Amino acid sequence: MRISKLGEFGLLERIKKLMKHKDPLVVKGIGDDCAVIDLDKKRYILFSCDMLIEDVDFRENISPYLIGRKAMGMVLSDVASKGGLPKYTLVSLGLSKNKTLDFVKKIYQGFMYWVKRFNFEIVGGDISRAEKLIIDISVLGFVEKKNLVLRNGAKVNDIIFITGKLGRKDKHLYFLPRIEEGRYLVNNFRINSMIDISDGLLQDLSHILQQSKVGAVLYKNLIPYDKKINFDEVLNQGEEYELLFTLPPKEARRLLSMKRGVYHGIGQIVSSDYGVRLIDENFQERKIKIRGFRHF
Amino acid sequence: MRISKLGEFGLLERIKKLMKHKDPLVVKGIGDDCAVIDLDKKRYILFSCDMLIEDVDFRENISPYLIGRKAMGMVLSDVASKGGLPKYTLVSLGLSKNKTLDFVKKIYQGFMYWVKRFNFEIVGGDISRAEKLIIDISVLGFVEKKNLVLRNGAKVNDIIFITGKLGRKDKHLYFLPRIEEGRYLVNNFRINSMIDISDGLLQDLSHILQQSKVGAVLYKNLIPYDKKINFDEVLNQGEEYELLFTLPPKEARRLLSMKRGVYHGIGQIVSSDYGVRLIDENFQERKIKIRGFRHF
Repeated sequence: MRISKLGEFGLLERIKKLMKHKDPLVVKGIGDDCAVIDLDKKRYILFSCDMLIEDVDFRENISPYLIGRKAMGMVLSDVASKGGLPKYTLVSLGLSKNKTLDFVKKIYQGFMYWVKRFNFEIVGGDISRAEKLIIDISVLGFVEKKNLVLRNGAKVNDIIFITGKLGRKDKHLYFLPRIEEGRYLVNNFRINSMIDISDGLLQDLSHILQQSKVGAVLYKNLIPYDKKINFDEVLNQGEEYELLFTLPPKEARRLLSMKRGVYHGIGQIVSSDYGVRLIDENFQERKIKIRGFRHF
Repeated sequence: MRISKLGEFGLLERIKKLMKHKDPLVVKGIGDDCAVIDLDKKRYILFSCDMLIEDVDFRENISPYLIGRKAMGMVLSDVASKGGLPKYTLVSLGLSKNKTLDFVKKIYQGFMYWVKRFNFEIVGGDISRAEKLIIDISVLGFVEKKNLVLRNGAKVNDIIFITGKLGRKDKHLYFLPRIEEGRYLVNNFRINSMIDISDGLLQDLSHILQQSKVGAVLYKNLIPYDKKINFDEVLNQGEEYELLFTLPPKEARRLLSMKRGVYHGIGQIVSSDYGVRLIDENFQERKIKIRGFRHF
């Protein structure tokens, strides 16, 4: 069977079946934003990687600085979505022969933009020759045991929130990994589930719903988005790197009372029988098709 | 300046200069086989990654099983060379659309060959579309503080050893990551420096010499290699994945008295004034040019 038929998530499911985690310290293996490993009494290790490839994830004409910033930002977003702090990263670079030292430096300046902001380190990596530019970054982060949030903890009645505004122009290049927001949330609220919107709002919501065995109702009027963009696009376009999270109604009210602006309630978790429903501006229910970003 | 002019190591030096490790827990950043991070009273974290790219590191006609085995074996070898044990890995895969599920499964079977043998886990990764097959694996390992060996600890008079025999046919596919040998060495002997021979005997020896600020004398007659191969090739060809290590003469004699067969003394560490010298079968000194494997 061709992988183009299976799709990325189908392929991931098959790969998952090949693995059996025997090590009791592996709290979460394949199937969340980060692997979660039991470290000591107080902390888990978060371990994740993201690969960017020229002509697939970006075009050649994007500046190396922005590509570097994006590549590093993506993997930081994984750590943010588990409530953790990034600490150490490795960078694998695939470079064509004709690239200049200046080009490589600019990629690293993109990395360093986040290194300075979030106070972590690049501790090593690998360099290889390649026809197309490849950047694969892996990250080691840490989260207090009491603060870890996975995809599988959403509960019926939880309010669904997102950070920021969806569909903003060039967001795939200029996003902010929500490290600080993730920390604020897990340090101050009982967050039941969280994910970053790297594959699109509906796709990533559906990961939470599947793993938590629940359904959801979304309200179009509550979803903040750039009105220049078609709403259907907003629901399905990937690379937003905002956080999507759920928390009990009482906690949600407390969060809103903080008036932080960046957190927007967009719907509610319901029983799995309901599936996913979208209520539009006329309070009409709309059927939802989940497309999301497809790699294959 | 083109990176083809700088070469891999020149480029690495430049990248290293862009980084300043502020975190006191980073014991070793860029410039060894693994990054080394202080974890707790007893242990360091080892963190490393290796990237393989079709048509650069292997040809398309190599079986996916062997490619998977090789990719995972490379990164295990990094951990072996620091005396550590691998525990958790992430796999980033770049795949073209027309690949089959069976193809991907075979790559994973290659990974699992080592997973079973060395008792570690694949805990996650990333999948992306790519024109050429790309495999980038990062590993988290651990080593007891008393057992860590770096590249920079070689001392004058140390005896230089390698594991195994160099230049064996298809060694770049069928090598054994020397995890068990590495552990045996650090658990039982005072090893002053160690590296894996991924870039060629001379190239990797020179990393130890530079970082330890010493020189070396090698004896051609002592270097075990496949006689079908030109000796000059043996000195310079990469992807051997044997360990190269140094230890004091007394410890070296004790190691040899164990008669384990796999450990071969090939020379001695001398003052840096001597540079690197090779004594051939007629006890003639030969000048040595270090070529090693060049990515660019």
